[in-house]
Amino acid sequence: MSLLVTGSIAIDTVTTPFGVSENCLGGSAVYFSMAASFFTPVRLVGVIGSDCPFDLAKVFADRDVDLTGLEVRPKSKTFRWKGTYSDNLDDRTTDLLELNVLAEAPPKVPDEYKDSKYVFLANTAPALQLQLLEQIETGVFAAADTMNCWIENELDDLKQLLKKTDCLIINEDEARMLADEQNLIRAAKKVLDAGPSVVIIKKGESGSMMCSADGEGFILPAFPAAEVKDPTGAGDSFAGGLMGYLAQVGRTDSESLRTAIAYGTVTASFTIADFSLAGLASISKADIGSRFETLRKVTRF
Amino acid sequence: MSLLVTGSIAIDTVTTPFGVSENCLGGSAVYFSMAASFFTPVRLVGVIGSDCPFDLAKVFADRDVDLTGLEVRPKSKTFRWKGTYSDNLDDRTTDLLELNVLAEAPPKVPDEYKDSKYVFLANTAPALQLQLLEQIETGVFAAADTMNCWIENELDDLKQLLKKTDCLIINEDEARMLADEQNLIRAAKKVLDAGPSVVIIKKGESGSMMCSADGEGFILPAFPAAEVKDPTGAGDSFAGGLMGYLAQVGRTDSESLRTAIAYGTVTASFTIADFSLAGLASISKADIGSRFETLRKVTRF
Repeated sequence: MSLLVTGSIAIDTVTTPFGVSENCLGGSAVYFSMAASFFTPVRLVGVIGSDCPFDLAKVFADRDVDLTGLEVRPKSKTFRWKGTYSDNLDDRTTDLLELNVLAEAPPKVPDEYKDSKYVFLANTAPALQLQLLEQIETGVFAAADTMNCWIENELDDLKQLLKKTDCLIINEDEARMLADEQNLIRAAKKVLDAGPSVVIIKKGESGSMMCSADGEGFILPAFPAAEVKDPTGAGDSFAGGLMGYLAQVGRTDSESLRTAIAYGTVTASFTIADFSLAGLASISKADIGSRFETLRKVTRF
Repeated sequence: MSLLVTGSIAIDTVTTPFGVSENCLGGSAVYFSMAASFFTPVRLVGVIGSDCPFDLAKVFADRDVDLTGLEVRPKSKTFRWKGTYSDNLDDRTTDLLELNVLAEAPPKVPDEYKDSKYVFLANTAPALQLQLLEQIETGVFAAADTMNCWIENELDDLKQLLKKTDCLIINEDEARMLADEQNLIRAAKKVLDAGPSVVIIKKGESGSMMCSADGEGFILPAFPAAEVKDPTGAGDSFAGGLMGYLAQVGRTDSESLRTAIAYGTVTASFTIADFSLAGLASISKADIGSRFETLRKVTRF
């Protein structure tokens, strides 16, 4: 089924203990689309400036990523992020953040995208996420990401968004902050009370967990990756694999969500093996399938 | 089969965000024995001073814990530890550490314990662990714990111990330090090269992982505990449930190790629900079985 993503397209400069990747392609919508395209056609809604050095049509060549929703604003500049990871890759500092085009009005959702059945609203101001969601016909399965600054500064908008969102996919620290509760299990339940029927909490190298309003729970470790060079895009690749699988099978029951989280997990494990999109660009669907089976094997008891 | 544990018996004072437990019973051998006794008879080797206010025979009443190896030294003082946990329970500071009797010669292993087939050497100086292990007949499955200070200061002794140990059960930070390698998968492989056929890495609320020399891997999340009051003893309870199950079934193949790790995980989840031994003292084997099934359910995909 049709999967739509709205999110950022970025020019990133990333420093990790394993090297520096200067002015490389990044952004939530880019990682998400690349990851999801292994499972289902993707409709991308995003905006860049005239300075963007990347030809997205080439980047997504041979992948089923529809770029009708890609807006190029000649007078604007592309979003830029520069970050440095700590030695153990657990922490990162933002060295530079230029919102540029992301500080302007959100892109328009093309008419031909409005029948999308699965929607992922990558992290941005919740008011913008709401505006984007309102452009799409009802009856979708909508998932959203958010981050600390919106929880701190735009909580009312975020609460409105949560009421209209089926699934929230956030980091553990964000879940704790949003729920004002240290214990993750209780935090997840408090988030569910705010609206979504499913909350999926990303725990980095510790994996992820899902809680749903019908009482279903699921916990999955991260894929045991011996090769980690750059964690940038891991969360959006996780969401991409996850939503891509759900859209592929056209179901959001508990079994499908579990399988989707496992696919999201293994897809993200390829992203972090290299800088920018190199990890995802060099693999096939069979590689994802192989790691999926490995993950099942190493977690079974 | 017979399971022997050597470790500390402590008078603990523990402060967590949920309260203070003053001068309560603690120590690795105590938590381990209580946890393992749900699965198999336990032989305890440990030493206390005349100041110890606890009657261990009463503590372990109705449990199959043999105290022949408990030594009371009239002129010595019992080991004392005082610690405070951070708000999120992730970190703890040691406010007081009085080794007392632990700084003396190790206790003697009673003759009737020398045919033990499963042995757990709880954390202490690796030279002492070696001395204790040498008192037991060969052919055992020996597992050991260690900690940062021995890796820093007694590495040669520790390397000797690793050559004689079948299974090392350590925290993730200790594994990284011991292997001088940030990536846990690679760290585990380096530890295996030093001797043990199995390494089990404890990751606190992120669960645990096992790597074995025959290439088998296993990753398990922690039990999703909504009630956490005091993490003290979690690691030793984990080891107790794990070794208790192995001794019960009398096997150490990969399947048994996986099941054992799951039993260790759920046993530890009861320990952390209350201060000192209250969490473990109030449950039955059926409670452990019930959480085991829950853990299997929430990790299946």
